[in-house]
Amino acid sequence: MTRTILFAAGPGLWAEYETPLRTALDGQDVRLTTEAAPEDVDYIVYAPKSHLQDFSPYTNLKAVLNLWAGVEGIVGNPTLTAPLVRMVDEEGLTQGMVEWVTGHVLRHHLGMDAHIVNPDHVWDNRAPPLASDRIVAVLGLGALGAACATSLADLGFHVRGWSRSQKGLPRVSCRAGDEGLGAALDGAEIVVLLLPDTSQTREVINETTLSRLAPGAVVINPGRGPLIDDDALLAALDDGRLSHATLDVFRTEPLPADHPFWAHPRVTVTPHIASETRVSSAARAIADNIARAEAGQPLKGRVDRAAGY
Amino acid sequence: MTRTILFAAGPGLWAEYETPLRTALDGQDVRLTTEAAPEDVDYIVYAPKSHLQDFSPYTNLKAVLNLWAGVEGIVGNPTLTAPLVRMVDEEGLTQGMVEWVTGHVLRHHLGMDAHIVNPDHVWDNRAPPLASDRIVAVLGLGALGAACATSLADLGFHVRGWSRSQKGLPRVSCRAGDEGLGAALDGAEIVVLLLPDTSQTREVINETTLSRLAPGAVVINPGRGPLIDDDALLAALDDGRLSHATLDVFRTEPLPADHPFWAHPRVTVTPHIASETRVSSAARAIADNIARAEAGQPLKGRVDRAAGY
Ligand SMILES: NC(=O)c1ccc[n+]([C@@H]2O[C@H](COP(=O)([O-])OP(=O)(O)OC[C@H]3O[C@@H](n4cnc5c(N)ncnc54)[C@H](OP(=O)(O)O)[C@@H]3O)[C@@H](O)[C@H]2O)c1
Ligand SMILES: NC(=O)c1ccc[n+]([C@@H]2O[C@H](COP(=O)([O-])OP(=O)(O)OC[C@H]3O[C@@H](n4cnc5c(N)ncnc54)[C@H](OP(=O)(O)O)[C@@H]3O)[C@@H](O)[C@H]2O)c1
Repeated sequence: MTRTILFAAGPGLWAEYETPLRTALDGQDVRLTTEAAPEDVDYIVYAPKSHLQDFSPYTNLKAVLNLWAGVEGIVGNPTLTAPLVRMVDEEGLTQGMVEWVTGHVLRHHLGMDAHIVNPDHVWDNRAPPLASDRIVAVLGLGALGAACATSLADLGFHVRGWSRSQKGLPRVSCRAGDEGLGAALDGAEIVVLLLPDTSQTREVINETTLSRLAPGAVVINPGRGPLIDDDALLAALDDGRLSHATLDVFRTEPLPADHPFWAHPRVTVTPHIASETRVSSAARAIADNIARAEAGQPLKGRVDRAAGY
Repeated sequence: MTRTILFAAGPGLWAEYETPLRTALDGQDVRLTTEAAPEDVDYIVYAPKSHLQDFSPYTNLKAVLNLWAGVEGIVGNPTLTAPLVRMVDEEGLTQGMVEWVTGHVLRHHLGMDAHIVNPDHVWDNRAPPLASDRIVAVLGLGALGAACATSLADLGFHVRGWSRSQKGLPRVSCRAGDEGLGAALDGAEIVVLLLPDTSQTREVINETTLSRLAPGAVVINPGRGPLIDDDALLAALDDGRLSHATLDVFRTEPLPADHPFWAHPRVTVTPHIASETRVSSAARAIADNIARAEAGQPLKGRVDRAAGY
């Protein structure tokens, strides 16, 4: 029986995704459309800012497939009762995040900024320590965090990881739960945030947790803006407890022109580019999940609505 | 029979190396000293700027062990007939170079500088391509180049390597010899120089070879200054054929205050810190080579005097 897939992520994304999705779905008995009677719809391809907010008329819905990895814009929607999946796209999203995180960790580890901006032409040839002498804490060991922690460990860093449930990753010292957080952060010189935005993770970086880090530590946030208490972060940057923050995500995006992060000498703003869903691999991930659903197999990236991610 | 090891690398280095060398040599029947009758000396630990330049009185010399990887300051010395070994120090030197090269390749790949220095607070959220869409050429596949090429391939870059003799490295497309150079460079967006300074490699980066690179390519030089024709590099940077050069090594070091590299907006100068011989692992490498020599085994890092490296 032909399944109906409603693309409800908006016309801009439809222009980008239509052809790759049709290609990826080739061979499956489906109809891909931007308009359908709600009761006929089997799957919805979704983006959180979509005009579709009331799922109750979609009485035969088998799953909602989010185009992004973050689901904070839909997970609390009470009209949605069908399974929700977030994007898991190893080829594109995960790989891009590994490159961005590894690059910025190495940038701070090597102290590159002092050479990139060196108006006095200072020749100071003290070499940085080796990666094995640096503790890096990665908060969040999901699809993205686990891949980043592994890449950093491969490069020789001393990596600690933290998640809700206990994980076992080779060469990463893994901690879990609220009681494991302090141990993950103690003396860390670089912290990378790859947690989802939930009521549990909000402001996980605050006055108390910042005080566990090594003096002069660096915070790198490619997760979500609300993971950080911005005022506590700015205070720690101002008094030198932190030496830098590199932030890719913010409570309001684009970051407002008058936000203190823009002009702060110890903050680097990157414009939510740490990782992008890549159209062709994302389309394959969606087609693959629909095939799984049709075969009665578990969906990849299925969201736990109670946990919020 | 007790062997005599003359430390001839100078008093500053003696202060750093004496204890680590004694520790590393513990158990071998040797005498480590900074003064000995030349005919009594079995091994010399050396640094190219040493006052010792005439090796002819050292009639019983079994090997000269250089503290650095580069040997251009000693390889042409006609008074030296004993075997010469350069530093091969995987733990320290190689690991440090992998971190520096991987970090700067990722920096240019991700276009970090535009975010690190962003006075107009531009929010331009076009994400960079994936590493798999970037061709990186690594010239020199010795102890350092091979490790760097492998690390970049592990991160997903499309890596080409070039050396004098044909190599086979997993996931690296290897070329060799003068006729392989063009193929290694064609369309490369990032070039990393890890060649020794010899009469064959001098100015390998020149007008002609620069013209093979992709428009807007980046040159990264942690090898030796003379590998580059500086005028050709500056011309290519000025007219935009190259978008950037990150240089760690120079014909004169420290780089003279009036050198155009310092003020050039498309040049990053790092002060010969790409990798440092680390005292404790370097001391172990030297002790290990002396033990090999005593056991009649081949020396690690033996220099081919005719080839010049
Ligand atoms: N900047 C960008 O371009 C960009 C791009 C994509 C995604 N992101 C962000 O990255 C986040 C992570 O993505 P992902 O695909 O890796 O998500 P994921 O697979 O759901 O992983 C989330 C991780 O966070 C952990 N976690 C959640 N709540 C926690 C808590 N209360 N305490 C401790 N650990 C907790 C989870 O622990 P368990 O493993 O125990 O469940 C899991 O390890 C996304 O939510 C999104 O916000 C940003
Ligand atoms: N910036 C720093 O902090 C720093 C630190 C350490 C070293 N260095 C520099 O890095 C250089 C490389 O060190 P290494 O230990 O990797 O040296 P190595 O093991 O001797 O390797 C040299 C490589 O260059 C290749 N090569 C030499 N002449 C060539 C030619 N004419 N054409 C093509 N390829 C040629 C060799 O080819 P084959 O494999 O065929 O012999 C080999 O692959 C050193 O010489 C030194 O100048 C810099």
